Amino acid sequence: MTTQTADHTDVRATNLAAVLAFLRREAPCSRAAIATGTGLNKATVTSIVGDLIDRRLVRETQQTQNHVGRPATLLVLDGSAYAAIGLEVSARGLSASAYDIAGNQLLRWHRAGPGVDAGPAKTTAALVTLARRAIATVQSSGRQVLGLTVGVPGLVNRDGSVILAAGLGWRDVRLRADLTQALGRPDIPVIVDNDANLAALAELRYGPQAGAENLILLTGDTGMGAGVICDGRPLRGTLGYVGEIGHLEIEPGGPLCGCGRRGCLEAMAGIPAILARVAPDSAVDPDPQVQLEQVVRRAEAGDAEVIGILTEVGGRIGQGISVLVNVLNPGTVVLGGSYALLAQWLIPSAEKELQDRALAPDAGGCAVIASTFGHDGTSIGAVARSLDRLDSGRLPAARSW
Amino acid sequence: MTTQTADHTDVRATNLAAVLAFLRREAPCSRAAIATGTGLNKATVTSIVGDLIDRRLVRETQQTQNHVGRPATLLVLDGSAYAAIGLEVSARGLSASAYDIAGNQLLRWHRAGPGVDAGPAKTTAALVTLARRAIATVQSSGRQVLGLTVGVPGLVNRDGSVILAAGLGWRDVRLRADLTQALGRPDIPVIVDNDANLAALAELRYGPQAGAENLILLTGDTGMGAGVICDGRPLRGTLGYVGEIGHLEIEPGGPLCGCGRRGCLEAMAGIPAILARVAPDSAVDPDPQVQLEQVVRRAEAGDAEVIGILTEVGGRIGQGISVLVNVLNPGTVVLGGSYALLAQWLIPSAEKELQDRALAPDAGGCAVIASTFGHDGTSIGAVARSLDRLDSGRLPAARSW
Repeated sequence: MTTQTADHTDVRATNLAAVLAFLRREAPCSRAAIATGTGLNKATVTSIVGDLIDRRLVRETQQTQNHVGRPATLLVLDGSAYAAIGLEVSARGLSASAYDIAGNQLLRWHRAGPGVDAGPAKTTAALVTLARRAIATVQSSGRQVLGLTVGVPGLVNRDGSVILAAGLGWRDVRLRADLTQALGRPDIPVIVDNDANLAALAELRYGPQAGAENLILLTGDTGMGAGVICDGRPLRGTLGYVGEIGHLEIEPGGPLCGCGRRGCLEAMAGIPAILARVAPDSAVDPDPQVQLEQVVRRAEAGDAEVIGILTEVGGRIGQGISVLVNVLNPGTVVLGGSYALLAQWLIPSAEKELQDRALAPDAGGCAVIASTFGHDGTSIGAVARSLDRLDSGRLPAARSW
Repeated sequence: MTTQTADHTDVRATNLAAVLAFLRREAPCSRAAIATGTGLNKATVTSIVGDLIDRRLVRETQQTQNHVGRPATLLVLDGSAYAAIGLEVSARGLSASAYDIAGNQLLRWHRAGPGVDAGPAKTTAALVTLARRAIATVQSSGRQVLGLTVGVPGLVNRDGSVILAAGLGWRDVRLRADLTQALGRPDIPVIVDNDANLAALAELRYGPQAGAENLILLTGDTGMGAGVICDGRPLRGTLGYVGEIGHLEIEPGGPLCGCGRRGCLEAMAGIPAILARVAPDSAVDPDPQVQLEQVVRRAEAGDAEVIGILTEVGGRIGQGISVLVNVLNPGTVVLGGSYALLAQWLIPSAEKELQDRALAPDAGGCAVIASTFGHDGTSIGAVARSLDRLDSGRLPAARSW
């Protein structure tokens, strides 16, 4: 057991994070405004702002405030120095996003494939190519890459190995180690995390519910899973496997699931299951993205068969949400990924099941809504994950420019 | 949104909590040892220890250490000044515990009844009588009562109102407000919390797994529920309703549950359901405690019918645990309350179902064990809850002695 102390380094990091958070909300603002807004004394603020300016995270502007007395120099976050890269592996293909620390999007790419049957080696190679291109693009804009995070639909342990991703057919893939080695960039820390965890982080940081203390994001594009924010923090669990609601037994003896069991929620209400039911003969394009767009078009056109399937699937999703609500009492459940595109047809029946099945009156105050990020949620959350070190007040090493 | 800062008060409280935690582990020890063990500087330790001595939380002993140089006075926690009281309401009756801050048990009482059909007014009156007796007993030992916490088997909101306790037939009972008023002791803060949350806290603080980062305690004496420690913290959720696994639908159309639904885990595997199956004609004593002892005796004697029922119920409990494991990835699930007394017959089938149903290999590293606290878990955890303020470094007001 370690003794928890607020030693000097921790206090400095906490205060630095507070200054950064204040700047993110309020900039342009003066040092005095930071001191007032954070409760820190002026000497501390001056010292922290000095560190931030040295590392090109903050700069002084020519603007000044016209208060009584000496005009105060205003500070702004400087987005020009650092950025992070987020990647996603899914049944839909590979995605990449990059943002600088001021929140400017530097790139947003999607490529179909390699397919789910390509295997981990081929997909890892494609990821490396994509990562290299993203790094080059960020660097060519004059920014330093703070880190790179990859979201994967499956069980990811704390070492960044993918223990099981049934929807991709992966088992025991040392993805973080393999990517780090293949990239050959020891200056860029690589993180691998579960896709739903990252999409939940995107909602927590940048979504309409940003800062929500109790929020669950549900995704079902490849595997079905939940990212859980509880009491203000993303949950991880003992090995990192929180949120695997997709393997809740919904129908004993039901359809076979990728995990080898029968009647799992994922096998009945995951996006691949929806696509298989709407277009069972694969008469449409084999690309799941094209199939999904067709489902949306048919539902928008009032196709009774498609709407019936989505209503039924919504009820199944509501069953799953009711379990999450009973166990975790979230204030919001966000439907992410492709579910967001189908949300208007899924939510009514999902809410009905939730109200019927949740123990707490009014489902413990839980609202079911659609993500505004759609398919970008995981890669945006992946960027946030790499920026976490900075947001918690750990600065990159100062270097000469 | 509030700005998080490490202001002076927080730093002081964090450091004070670190000193107390160190003393709890290492006393008797010197101020210098505290400084070394916590990483705090000596002036800070001297000042904090001074505050603790003023409030009679710590005292100097005549003992000294024989190091080279000036002998150091040793410090010990002083258990003589403060205590907290924990109460529990359950189908088994009312329980009370009190401990001083040095961990000495001051009282441990149990009384059968009032029965589950007594209603909240009668039970609250009985609780007030019990609380007054406990307060008088603690005070007659020369100690100040830091607080009183009551555990209830149901949904308890953040105001300490019981929204629903189906096993007691309670709905919308303002228990904390009613108790506070009836006690007429504004100097004693009253907390009301879910029974399983408190029993989990007892495990976290004082159990064999003390300090476990990911632990779930499962109890089924009245309502069935879980107290969840995840990533080192007890979870609460948006309204305080985390852990209601008892209403997982295990058998569609199954037996009627107290919540009005059918086939809930609680209706099939709760202690009242077990007792009703083993002694359906109530030929035994109506006191559930006596009935439970008879179940244990019959199982110990190798009664095949009883062992068969417990094995089947263990499987149902394992189904419930598998959902908790998939969603929360605990390292340990502890069977608490009466389940602890039946654990040797429940655990083998529970573990089998868990291994079959959990998505992660080896159930994500989860072990199922029996609580060592048995029926005292909730009231011990209730004491810990009232001591929390102190453990987080918030001192009671200094007073003259």
